[in-house]
Parts: sequence; C-alpha cells; structure tokens
Amino acid sequence: MKINRHYLQLPENYLFSEVAKRTRQFQTQHPDVSVIKLSIGDVSRPLPMVVVQAMKQACREQGYAKTFHGYGPEIGYPWLRNAIANFYQQQSKIKIDPDEIIISDGAKSDLANLLDIFDTRATVAMCDPVYPVYLESNLMLGRTPQFFRATAANDLLPLPDEQITADIIYLCNPANPMGVCYQREQLKQWVDFARTRQAIILYDAAYACFIHDPNLPRSIYEIDGARECAIEICSFSKMAGFTGMRCGYTVVPKTLVTADGISLNQLWRRRQTTKFNGVSYVVQRGAEAVFTPTGLNAIQQNIAYYQRNVQLICRTLNKLHWSYVGGVHSPYVWIRCPGMRSAWECFDFLLQETGIVFTPGIGFGSAGENYIRLTGFNSYRNTQRACRRLLNLQQNKKH
Amino acid sequence: MKINRHYLQLPENYLFSEVAKRTRQFQTQHPDVSVIKLSIGDVSRPLPMVVVQAMKQACREQGYAKTFHGYGPEIGYPWLRNAIANFYQQQSKIKIDPDEIIISDGAKSDLANLLDIFDTRATVAMCDPVYPVYLESNLMLGRTPQFFRATAANDLLPLPDEQITADIIYLCNPANPMGVCYQREQLKQWVDFARTRQAIILYDAAYACFIHDPNLPRSIYEIDGARECAIEICSFSKMAGFTGMRCGYTVVPKTLVTADGISLNQLWRRRQTTKFNGVSYVVQRGAEAVFTPTGLNAIQQNIAYYQRNVQLICRTLNKLHWSYVGGVHSPYVWIRCPGMRSAWECFDFLLQETGIVFTPGIGFGSAGENYIRLTGFNSYRNTQRACRRLLNLQQNKKH
Repeated sequence: MKINRHYLQLPENYLFSEVAKRTRQFQTQHPDVSVIKLSIGDVSRPLPMVVVQAMKQACREQGYAKTFHGYGPEIGYPWLRNAIANFYQQQSKIKIDPDEIIISDGAKSDLANLLDIFDTRATVAMCDPVYPVYLESNLMLGRTPQFFRATAANDLLPLPDEQITADIIYLCNPANPMGVCYQREQLKQWVDFARTRQAIILYDAAYACFIHDPNLPRSIYEIDGARECAIEICSFSKMAGFTGMRCGYTVVPKTLVTADGISLNQLWRRRQTTKFNGVSYVVQRGAEAVFTPTGLNAIQQNIAYYQRNVQLICRTLNKLHWSYVGGVHSPYVWIRCPGMRSAWECFDFLLQETGIVFTPGIGFGSAGENYIRLTGFNSYRNTQRACRRLLNLQQNKKH
Repeated sequence: MKINRHYLQLPENYLFSEVAKRTRQFQTQHPDVSVIKLSIGDVSRPLPMVVVQAMKQACREQGYAKTFHGYGPEIGYPWLRNAIANFYQQQSKIKIDPDEIIISDGAKSDLANLLDIFDTRATVAMCDPVYPVYLESNLMLGRTPQFFRATAANDLLPLPDEQITADIIYLCNPANPMGVCYQREQLKQWVDFARTRQAIILYDAAYACFIHDPNLPRSIYEIDGARECAIEICSFSKMAGFTGMRCGYTVVPKTLVTADGISLNQLWRRRQTTKFNGVSYVVQRGAEAVFTPTGLNAIQQNIAYYQRNVQLICRTLNKLHWSYVGGVHSPYVWIRCPGMRSAWECFDFLLQETGIVFTPGIGFGSAGENYIRLTGFNSYRNTQRACRRLLNLQQNKKH
C-alpha cells in the first residue's frame, strides 16, 4: 500500500484538544468555578429568521416532484452567484462577473483544494502565526513553506521583502489569529510584489465583514492589479453564522492567466466540476437570503454584537495596560502575554486565576510563543463577566 | 504562475454538453415532438416527507441561540455515523465500527479526494467503460491508468488478471454505466487478488441500494478479507434522492493498515479534518431520518419506482431482440447498439426516429463505442411512452 508518507510528518494538531484537556482538568479541580471560554472560534448567534425561512421553503420544495431539485451546477446556482456579484458592487464598488464566483462548502475546503490547480513543485509563503490549514495542506504535499513573521517590530503586519521567493503567497486579512488589518497601501505593496514575481496571492477574506472603516479595503480586488495576481476566498461562516451550514465562495478573475494564456478560472472550474458536486440546494437558498435587505440587516446586527464584545475586551485590556493588537476590524484580539510568560504558562495562569479560557498563540506558529488570543464570539453577558474577572485579578494583585 | 499542467492534458468532457446540443438541435427541427430523456442520471422522485420534516426541524433549530449548531465534527455527527453502522448490521449482517464511517458531501468528492492519502507515484487500474471521475482525478495527478475492459466476452464483468499491476483498483458495483453486478465469488476473486498484491480497492457502492437479491453482496465487507484491502464509498444520492442535498460516507476499516502499521482510517480522518469542515447540520439531520422505519420504507418505494421503469425498458428490449445487460440490480441498462452502429450514430438514429435521448457509451471510455445507456430515472409515464415509441419503430420497420 503506497500511502502519502508526507502525512506522517504532520505535526500532531493538539492545540484545541490540549486546551480542552486542561480546561476539563481545571473544571474537575474547581467544580464551583463557571469557566468562560473566550477561546471560542465559532459563532454563537443563531441564523437570521429570513435565512431560516428560505431554507425551510427549500426543504418543502424538496418534498414534491414538481419543485424537487436534484444535481445543481457544481459551481453553484446562478441566482446565488449573481447575488454575490451584486454584493461586491454594493460593498466595494467593484465589478465581479458572476462567472468569476465559484460556490463551495466553505473557505477551509477551498483554501486547501486550490493547491490542486498548481504545480506540486510550486513554492509557498505564509505568515507566522498562521491559520493551520494553509500550513498543513502544504505539508501534506511534502512542501516546506517559507514564513514571514508577524511580530511587534512590524506591528504584526508583515510586508513583502526580498527573502520571499514563493510562487504562492497566503494572506489572511483581517488576520487570523492576530486580528490586525492591512491598510490599502500595504495591500498594494503585496499586489505589486506578487505581480513583479508572477506569484499568486491566495487572499483569505473570511473575516472581511468585520471591517467597518470605509477606507480599508474589504476585498483585494479594490487594489489595482489584484485581478492579475489574486484569488479571493470568502465564507458565509463568520459573516452570516454559517459555520454549521457550510457555504463559501472563491473568486478567480478571468484576468488571472499564465504567461502562455492559461486561465486559472478555467482550471478551478475544472477542479470543482470534476472533484466536487456542488453545495446543498437548501444551503444555497439560505445563502441567497443573506443578501436580501432583511438578511443584510440581520447579519449586521450579529456582527455588531460580536464587535461590542470585542470592544469591551479591548477597553478592559487598556485598563489593565496589557499590550495587544486587533479587536477593531476583527473578532480577534492578540495579546502579548503579560509578565513575559510563554503562551501555555499564560494560559495556565489565567485559567487558574480567572477561570477564563484563552487560546495559546503558540498553536498558530512559533511567532505566537508569547501571545494569547481572545475572541468576541461568546455571549455579551459572559464577556462582561470575564472582563470583570480580569479587572479583579489586577485589583487583587495591587492589594 | 506554476500551474498544474496535467490539467491541460484532460480530455474535454463534452459528453453531456454534446448530448444536450444535439437534443436542442433536434427539438428546434421538430418542435412538435415531445423529447423523452432516458439519458437522465439524476433522481426525479422527491425526498421522503420524514426527511423533509427532519430538515425543517433542523432549520428551525438554527434560528435560536439555544438550539443553534455551529461547527460540527469534520467527520460527521456520531448520531448519523451510528445510524449508518446500524444500517450495515441490518442490511448486510456485518459489524462496522461508527469510527470507521466518515461522513462527506458525497461519493464524487470522496472518490476524488481519497487519492490525497496515497503516494503520488501509486499506480491505478479501473474498468473501461468507467465513471469519468475515477479517470479524470487521476489524469489531474499526471497518472496513466491501467484499464480492464468490460466487454461481451467477460459479460461486462471483468475479473482480475496478471496484467493488472496497480496499487489502487477501482471497482463500481453495481457498475456505472453498465448496470451489471458481481456475484459474491467474483468479488472474492478481486479481494484475494488485492490482498496478494497489497493493492487497495476503492469500492464505489453508490448503487448498492438497487441490489434486491439477498445472495448478492451489497457491501464489499460481506466478503472475507475485504476489511484488509478495501475502502467502501457510499452515497445518499441514489439511495435516498439526495443528489441535490449532498451527503455520502466512506468506510475505512481500522484493519486497513500498511505493512509498517500505518492506519488508513487515521490518514483519511486527517485528510478530512484538515481540508474539509463537515456536512451541513441540516443535511445530516435529513440523512439520519432516512434510517427511521418511515424513511427506509419511503426510500424503498422510490427505488421500486425506478426499478419498475427499468424493468419496463428491459421487457421492451426483449421484445425488440436488442442485446443488453444490466437493469436488474441497477437503474442502468447497457445496450449493444442495434445494427452494429457506433454509439453516436445510434444516438442520432434513435433521437431522429423516436425522440428519445440515450447516452452514448463512448462517453465512458473506448469499450463503450458500440453501446448506449438508458436509465430508469424518468417518470413511469415517460418511460411507458418511450417504450411504446421503440416498439413502434420496430413495427414501422417491418412494414
């Protein structure tokens, strides 16, 4: 049996299981403490009613021969791709052809599967810290990625430099796990760099909905030249609470062609039509409802809810004089471990002292060794309680 | 831009678009003829009401914070994996551990994605004619598959022989497109052959629900030794009408290990947890409902409906003295082109003379050059009308 032996080189992905294990241990030792998980990376707000109604209607249709939908287009129904194109027009004032939008079951799948359309010998570069899927999907192919480090020295927003020689560059903006967001001019540097070197940017825009400053680009295609070098990967997960529903989309511009005229849009369509059979009709109808006025209003309220949480966290961190980035255009706050502790030491200390679960930054790469991550995805009430505990911790220390 | 240049070697997959084009042309020239598509490869019966109800309930749950489901387990919810394990027990009297069952968005995705866990240098063998996904997903990796031909000489059921030296062997049973079905002893030959050569069988059981003879195996695991050499890929599409819903599952036995003890179950779990984020909660609740007594009864009625269609087709072919296989334990009938025509000649002739759309066998490989395929997936009424037209064609020829 000739298996892919690169799998044997994969690091044990133990971050979240280790967090869960230590949390359980703490809870057993302190059954009276109500643990608050500010480590949560999943949404907690329910789906908007207009989305639920659209899905229920689609379910009903599936029960009658006349309205039954079997196989749909592998790349997604035109009505959903049109709705997304309109959304780009409204949100970013840019024109995306619906044929450039390919619907999928989520950004994670697309980010990993996109590697199929590139040469196995292509080289890749990505940030450290990084969303583990970028790294692991490449390790599975036997690649050794280059890393550009996000550190306090570059405000956690690394820019292109001569040492990056890769054919494929991953950018996540706003960044997971750091919660920071590039300025327009910074993204322009990346686009120019990629074009000069004939590199492709895989632009993960899963958190773009959290950008509320109109001067910051929500799509890479707001940057001149991006249509010639970038693929944008988007998700309904954080934007519309679809983590359990599974829907995303990837934009591959028709202007993205190799020197000898091969269209990457055609390659990705071929990959998806051959190896994928489309997203559930019911889920696509739900996704379509997101773009109705009622849907857009409802998801804005959910995003505002999470942003209120994260703002409360930031105000608390300010009072504590802890150093952090993120939390403005992102559900994530990336905190420098107070007292120069390592990430796991800090995790343990804060769990013991406050009953709050953080995510140790080291789980995202070596540059996260002295960082911990918090998110705004818990309830407002729990976030309030957690913030009070953090302030008390400080108070108690003073006495 | 270093793209995967193997994509440029892929054959233009023009079968279904060419069928559609010629059908449109015919319809334009003969606007009075009501064209009947017996080429249809999609189900036409609606979902059972118990499935619709379960999905509507799941949609409702998604609308309230208390019952909302975010990210689920990437490999599927335990309640669905348990239901499938029970189904194996009832249907085939075999014990499959729920941990050996990994839920996905469908057999097509799994059949293609499973290649990820094998060495890129592994060799593959498959039937000609073949479901194009097996072939094309391998061409995308730059592989040149071996073919074992299904011909009249082997009753369209090729058995292993010394010329097959591949590391990975695809079997589809009942076969798409031929509609034939292996006997237990024949499958045993494949299993023994694979074990002797340390080969893996990728066993596509998407049409297993059409097997109604209890002496024929519905699962490869009914064969001794299969747990040491075979991965079984299953689908709710044809079994429960889920072509538009997207759900399937793959069984990777824990006993499937390399000589140095690497578990393929672990490799596939790692692939799916890294590159996939699970199937929609709503769809999984629908799939679970398939296994209720009401659900099982309803899907049996749908399968019986398609089987009645296909039986009618077979009776008609008998009257016409056309040579064919399949149609007993399958929704497919594989017909030797009457008059020694080529597949496309036969397609054109029958479309012109009867207004019925067949699928030219050549679309599935060179061994299909003199065959056409019919399916039982249209309505009974349309199938009746089509059969009458075929009989009339014969009558008219006699006069």
